[in-house]
Amino acid sequence: MSNRMWGGRFSAGPSAIMEEINASIDFDRKLYAQDIAGSKAHAEMLAARGIISAEDAGKIAEGLDAIKAEIDNGRFTFSRALEDIHMNVESRLKELIGAAAGRLHTARSRNDQVATDFRLWVRDSLDHVDGQLADLMKALVKRAGEHADTVMPGFTHLQSAQPVTFGHHLMAYVEMLARDRGRVQDARRRLNECPLGAAALAGTSFPIDRHMTAASLGFDRPTANSLDSVSDRDFALEAMAAASIIAVHLSRLAEEIVIWSSAQFGFVRLSDAFSTGSSIMPQKRNPDAAELVRAKSGRIIGDMNALLIIMKGLPLAYQKDMQEDKEQAFDCFENLSLVLAAMTGMVDDLVPNVARMAAAAGSGFSTATDLADWLVRVLGLPFRDAHHVTGRLVAIAAERGIELSDIPLADMKTVHDGITEAVYDVLTVENSVRSRTSHGGTAPDNVRAEVKRWTALLG
Amino acid sequence: MSNRMWGGRFSAGPSAIMEEINASIDFDRKLYAQDIAGSKAHAEMLAARGIISAEDAGKIAEGLDAIKAEIDNGRFTFSRALEDIHMNVESRLKELIGAAAGRLHTARSRNDQVATDFRLWVRDSLDHVDGQLADLMKALVKRAGEHADTVMPGFTHLQSAQPVTFGHHLMAYVEMLARDRGRVQDARRRLNECPLGAAALAGTSFPIDRHMTAASLGFDRPTANSLDSVSDRDFALEAMAAASIIAVHLSRLAEEIVIWSSAQFGFVRLSDAFSTGSSIMPQKRNPDAAELVRAKSGRIIGDMNALLIIMKGLPLAYQKDMQEDKEQAFDCFENLSLVLAAMTGMVDDLVPNVARMAAAAGSGFSTATDLADWLVRVLGLPFRDAHHVTGRLVAIAAERGIELSDIPLADMKTVHDGITEAVYDVLTVENSVRSRTSHGGTAPDNVRAEVKRWTALLG
Amino acid sequence: MSNRMWGGRFSAGPSAIMEEINASIDFDRKLYAQDIAGSKAHAEMLAARGIISAEDAGKIAEGLDAIKAEIDNGRFTFSRALEDIHMNVESRLKELIGAAAGRLHTARSRNDQVATDFRLWVRDSLDHVDGQLADLMKALVKRAGEHADTVMPGFTHLQSAQPVTFGHHLMAYVEMLARDRGRVQDARRRLNECPLGAAALAGTSFPIDRHMTAASLGFDRPTANSLDSVSDRDFALEAMAAASIIAVHLSRLAEEIVIWSSAQFGFVRLSDAFSTGSSIMPQKRNPDAAELVRAKSGRIIGDMNALLIIMKGLPLAYQKDMQEDKEQAFDCFENLSLVLAAMTGMVDDLVPNVARMAAAAGSGFSTATDLADWLVRVLGLPFRDAHHVTGRLVAIAAERGIELSDIPLADMKTVHDGITEAVYDVLTVENSVRSRTSHGGTAPDNVRAEVKRWTALLG
Amino acid sequence: MSNRMWGGRFSAGPSAIMEEINASIDFDRKLYAQDIAGSKAHAEMLAARGIISAEDAGKIAEGLDAIKAEIDNGRFTFSRALEDIHMNVESRLKELIGAAAGRLHTARSRNDQVATDFRLWVRDSLDHVDGQLADLMKALVKRAGEHADTVMPGFTHLQSAQPVTFGHHLMAYVEMLARDRGRVQDARRRLNECPLGAAALAGTSFPIDRHMTAASLGFDRPTANSLDSVSDRDFALEAMAAASIIAVHLSRLAEEIVIWSSAQFGFVRLSDAFSTGSSIMPQKRNPDAAELVRAKSGRIIGDMNALLIIMKGLPLAYQKDMQEDKEQAFDCFENLSLVLAAMTGMVDDLVPNVARMAAAAGSGFSTATDLADWLVRVLGLPFRDAHHVTGRLVAIAAERGIELSDIPLADMKTVHDGITEAVYDVLTVENSVRSRTSHGGTAPDNVRAEVKRWTALLG
Repeated sequence: MSNRMWGGRFSAGPSAIMEEINASIDFDRKLYAQDIAGSKAHAEMLAARGIISAEDAGKIAEGLDAIKAEIDNGRFTFSRALEDIHMNVESRLKELIGAAAGRLHTARSRNDQVATDFRLWVRDSLDHVDGQLADLMKALVKRAGEHADTVMPGFTHLQSAQPVTFGHHLMAYVEMLARDRGRVQDARRRLNECPLGAAALAGTSFPIDRHMTAASLGFDRPTANSLDSVSDRDFALEAMAAASIIAVHLSRLAEEIVIWSSAQFGFVRLSDAFSTGSSIMPQKRNPDAAELVRAKSGRIIGDMNALLIIMKGLPLAYQKDMQEDKEQAFDCFENLSLVLAAMTGMVDDLVPNVARMAAAAGSGFSTATDLADWLVRVLGLPFRDAHHVTGRLVAIAAERGIELSDIPLADMKTVHDGITEAVYDVLTVENSVRSRTSHGGTAPDNVRAEVKRWTALLG
Repeated sequence: MSNRMWGGRFSAGPSAIMEEINASIDFDRKLYAQDIAGSKAHAEMLAARGIISAEDAGKIAEGLDAIKAEIDNGRFTFSRALEDIHMNVESRLKELIGAAAGRLHTARSRNDQVATDFRLWVRDSLDHVDGQLADLMKALVKRAGEHADTVMPGFTHLQSAQPVTFGHHLMAYVEMLARDRGRVQDARRRLNECPLGAAALAGTSFPIDRHMTAASLGFDRPTANSLDSVSDRDFALEAMAAASIIAVHLSRLAEEIVIWSSAQFGFVRLSDAFSTGSSIMPQKRNPDAAELVRAKSGRIIGDMNALLIIMKGLPLAYQKDMQEDKEQAFDCFENLSLVLAAMTGMVDDLVPNVARMAAAAGSGFSTATDLADWLVRVLGLPFRDAHHVTGRLVAIAAERGIELSDIPLADMKTVHDGITEAVYDVLTVENSVRSRTSHGGTAPDNVRAEVKRWTALLG
Repeated sequence: MSNRMWGGRFSAGPSAIMEEINASIDFDRKLYAQDIAGSKAHAEMLAARGIISAEDAGKIAEGLDAIKAEIDNGRFTFSRALEDIHMNVESRLKELIGAAAGRLHTARSRNDQVATDFRLWVRDSLDHVDGQLADLMKALVKRAGEHADTVMPGFTHLQSAQPVTFGHHLMAYVEMLARDRGRVQDARRRLNECPLGAAALAGTSFPIDRHMTAASLGFDRPTANSLDSVSDRDFALEAMAAASIIAVHLSRLAEEIVIWSSAQFGFVRLSDAFSTGSSIMPQKRNPDAAELVRAKSGRIIGDMNALLIIMKGLPLAYQKDMQEDKEQAFDCFENLSLVLAAMTGMVDDLVPNVARMAAAAGSGFSTATDLADWLVRVLGLPFRDAHHVTGRLVAIAAERGIELSDIPLADMKTVHDGITEAVYDVLTVENSVRSRTSHGGTAPDNVRAEVKRWTALLG
Repeated sequence: MSNRMWGGRFSAGPSAIMEEINASIDFDRKLYAQDIAGSKAHAEMLAARGIISAEDAGKIAEGLDAIKAEIDNGRFTFSRALEDIHMNVESRLKELIGAAAGRLHTARSRNDQVATDFRLWVRDSLDHVDGQLADLMKALVKRAGEHADTVMPGFTHLQSAQPVTFGHHLMAYVEMLARDRGRVQDARRRLNECPLGAAALAGTSFPIDRHMTAASLGFDRPTANSLDSVSDRDFALEAMAAASIIAVHLSRLAEEIVIWSSAQFGFVRLSDAFSTGSSIMPQKRNPDAAELVRAKSGRIIGDMNALLIIMKGLPLAYQKDMQEDKEQAFDCFENLSLVLAAMTGMVDDLVPNVARMAAAAGSGFSTATDLADWLVRVLGLPFRDAHHVTGRLVAIAAERGIELSDIPLADMKTVHDGITEAVYDVLTVENSVRSRTSHGGTAPDNVRAEVKRWTALLG
């Protein structure tokens, strides 16, 4: 029943197997823009240093521009026999400009060339992700601003613990994503050294100017050690580690959306745009996008894990194992970009059910901590004693099937004589959240201040 | 510089994002043969049970055959709007046969349908891998037979420890791969229950015959619990765990080929078919295929890790997260098939340098253990004492820069008086390996017996 | 602020660092019972083959028994200077019985010795886990029997899809665990070959009887290749892969228990034994044990991943890297045993809220599929048309805020004229689940039959 | 044969199982110094803000100091019944100072307390690792300075490609470790916000001063969102990701040491301090420490992977799953510290065999690239043509079994007429490395300059 093609291909013998495992053009063609940019910078530098003629450099630049246009427009024919993007481009260049093409590869090697291309691609990806993180943060901040006063249960162990505001909850993710951006930017900064000119592994005897190519490709400086330049992939690992942590953050919000969308919680509702229905159960709104965001974290972590394993225990310098780096990074960042877009869409889209959230926030003696704190603050009880008194009051309420605020003062006094009418002020959900004014606390004014601060920061 | 397309697509808004993350047709089209086989079996059973008419079942079968032919021949137009392979096929079926197509989905759901398709695909993959493992074992056994007498150093810590034969070394991998086949076959047997008829999650009220569909798709029996049928993916996890262990085994042999191919070892040589050269260093024969086999282990382990993470903590029954199962399994088995083919090719291809292996086997006092064993066996020394005597003799040889067999008997006797001329018999590499006749030992006759046994077993 | 001890130790210089990284006695002492059993079997065989005297063998056996008793009773002093459990035991043996101890190590090496010890430990662990899996299955079957008729919503995407029975849901896990036992037993069977006698890597020239030691240690046979015997750890990897899948299964049930225990679901309640409370919120019952079971899946998968990475790319035969195998396996199986015990306890302990489950099962038009199936079965509509009719009826109910069974027949007939009074029979939750009588379906009689079948199988 | 204790413990019933899985005191006692520091800072702040009296704060500080001394000196009795380090300390505090102890927990919760303790521990670990990285870099720089002129083969695919210097090779690792330090320092900076005062999850109504506690614990500022403060563990994940990349770097150098130590390579020799011998093969020097460093990378990656899995998909705020964070981090950093110490020791210790390295560097036409570059530079050939000419010359040398420098000029001219006597200058290994003066190239002067730069930077 198998419809797998590769079985058949292999029967063609060793050369077919070797082409299948060895050729990278099927995936490294994604690097074409980076490869051409790198070659242009290299040729320009070679001419500036008198290693090739200005005329040859001019032809090379024109030829590379033409190739870029061909690939952009889907008119380029990639060849597996030419193995990789570098040879595909160089071979086409020879067709277009003749002998001058043969001078382009002076003072470089495929080892430093691919290291440069791949760094540029990872850098582009980090920049893209950084922008997407900012977009998601803006979406969260906007919704948090709308819901600075919307109360909901704050959960621990998925059990209602204390009331919080929905805005505060959303702002927690803003903090996480802000750190994520920090990691992305640090990774970009650390990555931003140019390996071009490291040549095969030892540097070169040509009088090249690596600072010039570095600058022209937007790098801060050339790398400092030629062996390291072609051997290491920690820039990709660091980027993928940052991606994994982002993916975990998003999977957590996705899990919440799934749980909140259940009929039993009913806290939020996604529109058709981000859920799928059922032709016979129109009330059903499956949070497919959220589930997929949650699942993609596994994929992204798997990619990073794979590259760590690939690199583990490899001697210097270039080993062919390292050809496996690209598909992992491509898969990681393409999926990360997708989940960031999907999550931003969902945050924009979701409609909280304010009434259900409020009802849930007020049930389950959720202000018991406020009561205990009142006993400490007003009556001066040690915290552990206040806990004990509160426990007895909650037991009374639970037994009678009422909330704490429904216990008559007289009954409260039987547990602790010092309790006064003033206690009832701290037993409402609204007052509870309003009182949490400590730095970083859930008080609506805090949330509004944070929204304002982040709105300014995000521009 | 970015040439990434998905950035642009997302700007088209929520529907584009949702299609991008939700549609699976780009990858689940690989399941078309399995999907069509499942539908044919289902329709035939529905007719046999009188749930649909024989006429409708006939039309459905014809239509499905036509669609299979269209896809086989590349004439089928897949639609992302139709999301997945199931809807693509069903929609086309309606075009081809009209209303009868609407009866095909009676008493089933996409949940049990995809579970069936995916099981069939994993089963096909396991069968394919099992055959490839047998091929690799045959290649190893053949080379082991040729080299039952070829001595080489047996290494621990990459230090020469005792002489072994190259044939024995290759047969170690036959043992590993035999266990791998056992795992593959056990996974296949355990997987081989048919989920079709579990419907969405609860079974169905139609009088279906699940034993009939199970049998017609080559399953041993239907699954026993409808919720489990659509919720679990442990069949894929088990298959991928077996794949991971295979990949680790192959990465070990690949590492050895890389090390053995170095100029410093010079134990084996790969032909051009499995290595790449350098236009200016023709003596260089980079073992690219072996390096890629080694690297792919990271990829395959990453795939398994990803699916474990995806499944972790999902409530029953079907969750959309599970859509991410397929690309991991596809990537895992396509790469595993590739590395098995490549390794089989390399084993066939590699040419051992018998002289260098033998020279290495005989250096470094590699028969010191034989000497110690002789002292125990012939002179009756306790093993720990024999160790001590041997150590002193090796020290003498090391000091003089000679091998153990070059120490005159008189000098030996100064260390232990009981030593006789007979000791020199155990100090040659050939006698050393010949003496290891214990069950599983490296003696050439043992190797030949194992080669014979495995040749018979592998048919 | 650091209270880390190892920083200080290292300042003592190379020898302290080397001891710290090299000595395994801190963890491999767990293998003492296996090590002593292996040594006893080896000595007995040596005597039977005339390699050592019966007298020496007797002394060795007595000495080893004495050492076992010392360790059992905590009276043994382990020495880091002696590195590992093998040397600790042998050194003590020499103290106890003198020179005869020096004959024990004849015809073996630490390489085959540790491979034997570790296999025995993994085998013990698999047996232990197998028993624990059986216990958990029994607990699930028992509860399923009690709740064969208890209805609850069957979820997909955490959205109510169709009613199922709680018993059926529990029996889904019985199926998963049954496959888990299959994997555990297959791993045990494949593992059950004895490496003792492979010696350092090449076998031995002593006339040992490996079948005898294999049999006396409960192995099915000796291993067939000496290099493989001391090089491979796939038995541990396979066992840990099986453990990982078990852990994923348990994490899913744990996730359900966490969600079901929330106030919003309120489906089940754990007693104090498996939850923790709060001194001031006595209604709070945090499902700590379930959360920890869920989390431990990460740990167990991490252990397996670690060992795969450790083994990746290692040449044959023994490499010191392999010393890192044990702590991963110990951590994996100790935690697996813990989560199995905890989950069995929770399954015994949990009290379902039958009324809340039933209410949830009946809401949300959960019998819409039954209605569609009725239209197909009774009126002969094609399934896709029946879907369409059902969708319109659900829309009417949703608009009016009623359930399907509350739509008057006349109104139903406006959507499809053929509908009769009989349709109301399929619209109740009880009839819905009762109708799912297909093989593996959720019908209470099916569940009872499965409970009976499994009760018999589990003895 | 099982000597596992936990099996027996569980038979004691649910409470034993729950204690076993729930209590964290067995591992979180490592946090005692951090826990006590946090409590002291908290109490001082409470007093400063008038929330507790100065007298109580004084008693608390004294009591905590006493407890710290007890634990430091091993005189503290930890209790499993008290579950964790926080309750163990608080309970003892009550014994020591009575009622005042009950005021310590005012305006905090175990959730922010453990988040603070664990951050402090990770911060300490990062600082420790940063210092160890600096030590290793110093060791590498020192050895590189000694070997700026020592030539060795530069490998790609473990095939000799071009000569490099041993100093340059070592400096490649200095670059890697410098980036590692950057990651460690960035992680520390990002981590360095104080969660104390976030309380259970919502902040508090007490007028606390979070900036004060933050400052007194060496944090840069308090965290900005209370929910985030108690929910997130990305600081640990980032630290462990940095650790994983370090571990991969070290595993690469370890792999090289293992290969270089083989008899076949013979490039380096470790002293007894970092290798183990064999009593009967005294020439054998197993590089155990290097192998263990290589293996530990698997363990450290496994730890990070585990924590990513644990955190994946957890809703906010605190979930008990997060208790599993600590053992992963402890294991990760304890092992990382160990491998850093071991690698630093090995770098100090290893003795390169300069003669063997030089001989290897000069064989295999390793200066073929120099020849091609000469043809480009001096004769003006396009690089691709120069490659072709070089290839023909190498073929001549290979055929005659001589090196390139042994081909008479006349024979060279038959391949390309323009070649002159001057070409022989570029064919020696010494001139080859001396010519690689491009930025980052392997020229000895470059290496010396880098050694000087790094020596200054490292102080």
